[in-house]
Amino acid sequence: MVKVIVDAMGGDYAPLEIVKGCVDAACDFDIEITLVGQEDKVKAELDKYQYDKNKIKIVHADEVIGGCDEPTSAIRNKKNSSLCVALSMLAEEKGDVCVSAGNTGALITGATLIVKRLKGVRRVALAPLMPSSSGAFILLDAGANVECTSAFLKQFAVMGSIYMEKVMNVTNPRVGLVNIGEEENKGTALAVETNAELKKLDLNYIGNIEAREIPQGGADVVVCDGFTGNVILKFMEGMGVVFYKMLKDVFYKNIISKLAALFVKSGIKSLKKTMDYTEYGGAPILGASKPVIKAHGNSNAKAFYHAVKQAVMLVENGVIDEIKKNIEKFEVK
Amino acid sequence: MVKVIVDAMGGDYAPLEIVKGCVDAACDFDIEITLVGQEDKVKAELDKYQYDKNKIKIVHADEVIGGCDEPTSAIRNKKNSSLCVALSMLAEEKGDVCVSAGNTGALITGATLIVKRLKGVRRVALAPLMPSSSGAFILLDAGANVECTSAFLKQFAVMGSIYMEKVMNVTNPRVGLVNIGEEENKGTALAVETNAELKKLDLNYIGNIEAREIPQGGADVVVCDGFTGNVILKFMEGMGVVFYKMLKDVFYKNIISKLAALFVKSGIKSLKKTMDYTEYGGAPILGASKPVIKAHGNSNAKAFYHAVKQAVMLVENGVIDEIKKNIEKFEVK
Repeated sequence: MVKVIVDAMGGDYAPLEIVKGCVDAACDFDIEITLVGQEDKVKAELDKYQYDKNKIKIVHADEVIGGCDEPTSAIRNKKNSSLCVALSMLAEEKGDVCVSAGNTGALITGATLIVKRLKGVRRVALAPLMPSSSGAFILLDAGANVECTSAFLKQFAVMGSIYMEKVMNVTNPRVGLVNIGEEENKGTALAVETNAELKKLDLNYIGNIEAREIPQGGADVVVCDGFTGNVILKFMEGMGVVFYKMLKDVFYKNIISKLAALFVKSGIKSLKKTMDYTEYGGAPILGASKPVIKAHGNSNAKAFYHAVKQAVMLVENGVIDEIKKNIEKFEVK
Repeated sequence: MVKVIVDAMGGDYAPLEIVKGCVDAACDFDIEITLVGQEDKVKAELDKYQYDKNKIKIVHADEVIGGCDEPTSAIRNKKNSSLCVALSMLAEEKGDVCVSAGNTGALITGATLIVKRLKGVRRVALAPLMPSSSGAFILLDAGANVECTSAFLKQFAVMGSIYMEKVMNVTNPRVGLVNIGEEENKGTALAVETNAELKKLDLNYIGNIEAREIPQGGADVVVCDGFTGNVILKFMEGMGVVFYKMLKDVFYKNIISKLAALFVKSGIKSLKKTMDYTEYGGAPILGASKPVIKAHGNSNAKAFYHAVKQAVMLVENGVIDEIKKNIEKFEVK
């Protein structure tokens, strides 16, 4: 039975949607959930539902880290926040995995300072699953490290590859390095060096990939520095918003187009779902010594349910142990 | 009468589509076009059309720079290529503006080495116009300089602002710096420094913008290093391809959806056109001492026609002189 520690106060719709998502997850999976947060508020939400009392409990935490709090000072100064208490419980092995929809920077900082990195891991990476026309890919780093070295990027490639293999069941995942051309001499000094280094690793490294190939499923593991990754993540989000707005305008134009909309409603809905990265659960913070999942800040109950499900898979498939073994192996080389 | 020098051998469909686009442009505008390239091939194309012989002439150039040629060595070693001859003619003032759909890197290198930069300009920038849901924005740098300093980025902001004002008639263009958050302390050391520097300039600088705001028209002038800009340009292209493929699948699903497609055909077509950046003419190479336009490599006659039209506007609106004045003004500060 996997023990999931949840930051019940993190996210735009906390604790309401977080608690609801957890009740649903506890109903469907063989798990035990600890909701960490302001007890009165969490209890008030929890009391709305029928649930197995053995599967959900509350641990009180006074403070809350807000979305605008500066990450490092929040982790240092708000020791009694739901996010810090949840991560501390994970560090003390009072649970197997921690999930939070709260402040991304604080969760990444906390994963490093409270949970700590795996031995040999230089930096943790924020690694969201993203949609492509041929399935899903993992993007890392999506913003944990704005400045990277090739040593960081090499480890991101290894960690992402393991995640896609173990959790997403992709055999021999194709690893690509984001660059502005496919040739070896292309890009920044960092890109040229990293491309050369990645070739030496025992990975299915397919070389530099240009950004136009990313949404077309050009690689299963997309490696880049956190600045570039964050730009890709947010640009995709913005493009999605624009496409659907424009598509809506096409269908709302006149009575004929409105009729057409009825005929393809379900198809358009499923297209939207396919390209919406919030549908793909949360983003693991890879490289931490224990599993930490960042759920989307705007998670509703369903999205948080999926993040909890993903957390369970991360634990059951032994991703952290696998990363540990491989980082050690590659360090020896 | 604007004198346009055209690299007739550059681009995927050269000289066929290039010549056709030029014939159409010569018909519609009060211009004189010089087609530079292998005379027999260019003449064979030209002979297919009726045109005013006073408005189009051919200048022979033996060699051709291919799409895969390494830019610097191509410029150094293929002096008799259509691209080099065209740029040399511009440098010698045998024309007012040069347009090429050829090798992007070679054109940028040639703009620097043959045409030369404006006095005070540190680097030229590739500056494509890109579509957003509320119009168009200029993105610079889109790939001329993979590594940048804040001094380069400041000049890109000034040049992009002038282009949007003079050519696109945007009053007081909003300039934004691509970053991973809006706060001042966000991003790389370069982003933090550039954000502080841009505030000091006499521009309508709106601060850091996140990538999700870019396709939503968050700024008229989007400033970033050439690595990030190239990723944005190509990612947008890839997203477009994926989106239309998926939309097609929705409409081709069954007889009902095919019927629906008929009802919204024109709307979808215009949506596609709005979001297709190749519809927006070419990309000026800003910072060169004379106007140079990079047309899309896959330009057909229509796209090249638009690039020529853009070239004429660049000349008629005195963009280069305006940039010259402003770079000097800002250098004094």
